[in-house]
Amino acid sequence: MATVAGVLRVLSVSNNNATALAPCSPKFSSSSPTAAAFVSLRGALTSGNLRERSNSLQQAMGQAHSLQQQMGQQSRKSVGPIRAGLITPDGGVLVDLIVADALKEKRLAEAPTLPHVNITKIDMEWVHVLSEGWASPLRGFMRESEYLQALHFNSIRSMDGTLVNMSIPIVLAIDDVQKESIGKDAEAVTLVGPDGEPVAILRNFEIYKHNKEERIARTWGTTAPGLPYVEEYIRNSGNWLLGGDLEVLERVKYNDGLDHYRLSPAELRAEFERRNADAVFAFQLRNPVHNGHALLMTDTRRRLLEMGFKNPILLLHPLGGYTKADDVPLEWRMKQHDKVLEEGVLDPETTVIAIFPSPMHYAGPTEVQWHAKARINAGADFYIVGRDPAGMGHPTENRDLYNPDHGKMVLSMAPGLERLNILPFKVAAYDKTKGQMAFFDPKRSEDFLFISGTKMRNFAKSGESLPDGFMCPGGWQVLVEYYQSLNKEQDNDSKVEQVQQAPKVLKDPVPV
Amino acid sequence: MATVAGVLRVLSVSNNNATALAPCSPKFSSSSPTAAAFVSLRGALTSGNLRERSNSLQQAMGQAHSLQQQMGQQSRKSVGPIRAGLITPDGGVLVDLIVADALKEKRLAEAPTLPHVNITKIDMEWVHVLSEGWASPLRGFMRESEYLQALHFNSIRSMDGTLVNMSIPIVLAIDDVQKESIGKDAEAVTLVGPDGEPVAILRNFEIYKHNKEERIARTWGTTAPGLPYVEEYIRNSGNWLLGGDLEVLERVKYNDGLDHYRLSPAELRAEFERRNADAVFAFQLRNPVHNGHALLMTDTRRRLLEMGFKNPILLLHPLGGYTKADDVPLEWRMKQHDKVLEEGVLDPETTVIAIFPSPMHYAGPTEVQWHAKARINAGADFYIVGRDPAGMGHPTENRDLYNPDHGKMVLSMAPGLERLNILPFKVAAYDKTKGQMAFFDPKRSEDFLFISGTKMRNFAKSGESLPDGFMCPGGWQVLVEYYQSLNKEQDNDSKVEQVQQAPKVLKDPVPV
Repeated sequence: MATVAGVLRVLSVSNNNATALAPCSPKFSSSSPTAAAFVSLRGALTSGNLRERSNSLQQAMGQAHSLQQQMGQQSRKSVGPIRAGLITPDGGVLVDLIVADALKEKRLAEAPTLPHVNITKIDMEWVHVLSEGWASPLRGFMRESEYLQALHFNSIRSMDGTLVNMSIPIVLAIDDVQKESIGKDAEAVTLVGPDGEPVAILRNFEIYKHNKEERIARTWGTTAPGLPYVEEYIRNSGNWLLGGDLEVLERVKYNDGLDHYRLSPAELRAEFERRNADAVFAFQLRNPVHNGHALLMTDTRRRLLEMGFKNPILLLHPLGGYTKADDVPLEWRMKQHDKVLEEGVLDPETTVIAIFPSPMHYAGPTEVQWHAKARINAGADFYIVGRDPAGMGHPTENRDLYNPDHGKMVLSMAPGLERLNILPFKVAAYDKTKGQMAFFDPKRSEDFLFISGTKMRNFAKSGESLPDGFMCPGGWQVLVEYYQSLNKEQDNDSKVEQVQQAPKVLKDPVPV
Repeated sequence: MATVAGVLRVLSVSNNNATALAPCSPKFSSSSPTAAAFVSLRGALTSGNLRERSNSLQQAMGQAHSLQQQMGQQSRKSVGPIRAGLITPDGGVLVDLIVADALKEKRLAEAPTLPHVNITKIDMEWVHVLSEGWASPLRGFMRESEYLQALHFNSIRSMDGTLVNMSIPIVLAIDDVQKESIGKDAEAVTLVGPDGEPVAILRNFEIYKHNKEERIARTWGTTAPGLPYVEEYIRNSGNWLLGGDLEVLERVKYNDGLDHYRLSPAELRAEFERRNADAVFAFQLRNPVHNGHALLMTDTRRRLLEMGFKNPILLLHPLGGYTKADDVPLEWRMKQHDKVLEEGVLDPETTVIAIFPSPMHYAGPTEVQWHAKARINAGADFYIVGRDPAGMGHPTENRDLYNPDHGKMVLSMAPGLERLNILPFKVAAYDKTKGQMAFFDPKRSEDFLFISGTKMRNFAKSGESLPDGFMCPGGWQVLVEYYQSLNKEQDNDSKVEQVQQAPKVLKDPVPV
């Protein structure tokens, strides 16, 4: 079958045979030897000759692979690629939906005159995401045509006819009463936040049916009960979706002491420019950073330098929106990440830490595309992808919900992400012979200790130390504090429970 | 939001304001006025100016629509487009997987030496589909990378980097025992048909997990029990998928008296060339043709002539693979279609009737893309799409499984179908004032009679005549015969049932 799959775009940076692929990004000038190799690969692949010769995908992939290896060899010796500015946002221009100062008074006066729709905390997180252009070129909650494209194609056709990636429906559910209250003649609607204040005006809106079963099935690949985002946000949401163009009245703030970490894509781009970044590699996470992560990030930078980039900058980008109850809360994660930088595990000079405001879907291969796409808009041209990204256990069966390899595969083949270089995550584990985290070597697997999240959590809860070198001491101390604060809460909870249970015991005494 | 949606590609042919859209097909020479209008629309849409001006999809769509209307007006007056041959197949070359005569003896000798995998009747239908290139550029059952692309993106990246549409996974399920029997070292596998004869060799194969839940959820948008294809073919199928390159030993034949209708895409293309077709419009169906269908097809041809085409040819293309039990069987449908042509309801000079060998998924918006894509490979550049194509009732809820408009919307936006012109189906009903089928006019809805499939079936079962002008008499007679043969079968069934029940009655007599 004559398809290239995504292999050409995967750049293995954690491997001695660094292989590279055909990027579509204009940042690679064809005057550099590396870029010349890319161009020659693309040329070979699109030529009639090769197409005639390769009667099978296998054959084509084999040829591409050997070209990639040649390129990898060339690139290690070559002068670095020449770049001209950061990667362009999807759709060409970074969307900014926050009302300009000059119009603000007018819009604030208009807002109370329009029909109101109360929105939830998670809706607010999406307003935040949309307002700053993370979902560029989307200009508001999806209308039906955008929703259908996201659901069926994980991509949306932009004005110039090209496809931009968009795998997660970004939609606003309303119920029958809300729909009724908007009425037939309204031309705009005011969205009102959980605190009762107007947040945004939605114009040129469209109301269409919210088929929850279909949305869930096509987004998660299952309709089993127990998917966190589904149960907390979709299952009981309204039967209609309200799409349209957003005008957001104020920049979204949380006043939780973390707003200074909430850099918009425009601010991140300015920061990368200020630092003269010639490559930006993003690391999405929703867990504490251990030294294995740090090793991977440091190693990625080393390899980008080897490829010829002069100043690759890491975007350490924890997700800050909705997460499920057993994930470590954002404030504790930020404290932990701070320590990682403070203690020099990651170099503050070449690392930008910021919060990604999106809520979490736990939708595996579908969601990882969103995570990657949003980072393009923030200026990242390299994206690190792990095993089973955005995955979780199946909610009703004893297995992973997704094949752990599918996230990486889907990401590398996704329409609209051709410009992004995918960096597969190499597994790190505790190397007992070195007393530190190291890339796992299957040839001496007995030397390695895997410390699962559960194991880490249990260590932290009991206040035990982890093996030296697993995590920086300050970072570990933060986790110990967090889990011990949970222990206290649980103790308090059990006391409350005992008090509540007491009357029952009294009513039903053990017979003497 | 700066997306064009699919509206630009939808050509409304059953409407007085014939509107046209930006085709990507090279068949439109820019020297014709119609084509010039297309080009100017595309130019306008891709220019920075328009993009800057259009801050919302609504606005952009409005502008595009008015351009379309201008084009519609122009095209009605203009000289026709100039074409150069039929539309190219997906991937550039029509795939043909049937072993060449020169190699046949060798392959027939090899087949018995390879590990064997027994395949089902529906697998055979897919072998048929693949062997003749309906799914070009696919060269066999999908490997994992192709499967994932179909499932997540409804499209697959072809060798030249462009996307071809591919919405339905075309996969071969095997069970643990079959997987075991293939072994680790095999380089090829022989597929054995239900009659015990070798059918094809599968090379460069790959075995990967068959996650049925995810496949069903992402293909159908539901996992509810009762989806016909799922229950009959997927639910009890094996836990593995076997993908690879097919070499099909013989052209697939059914020996059911209908093989002469089973024209391959190559044969259809030859037939269209022979007839000097300058436009081919495909009509997919799995039901009897009534005069409303005929009106639509005739009207489509008239409008294509008005647009300047000299010889538009209709491909009347009933689906011939698996259908659910209550659909009219293929042999009866073919008899009925024959009568429609015999009695001149459709013009045999400008109609090619043939069987589309694919099995039916009943997967609505996902499946309609497959139906359209396969017809590109057979040479069609216009595709008529109805209300709720490939739809059905929800298997467990009292509603349509799909929003009836979604099929058309999804089809018009689908990646890889940009070259195909989508012709929305205008509803026809029995116009009592005219005594014939006519396009429904909502202004005088009381004049129209809608004759549902169920109503038609009941009429036919009871042998009653339908209103004059609903269907040609010969065609109607075929349906009456079919449903009355069912009545007889049912009578026989009830007799058999009575006989079978008899002993039970004897064993458990009513007390006297």
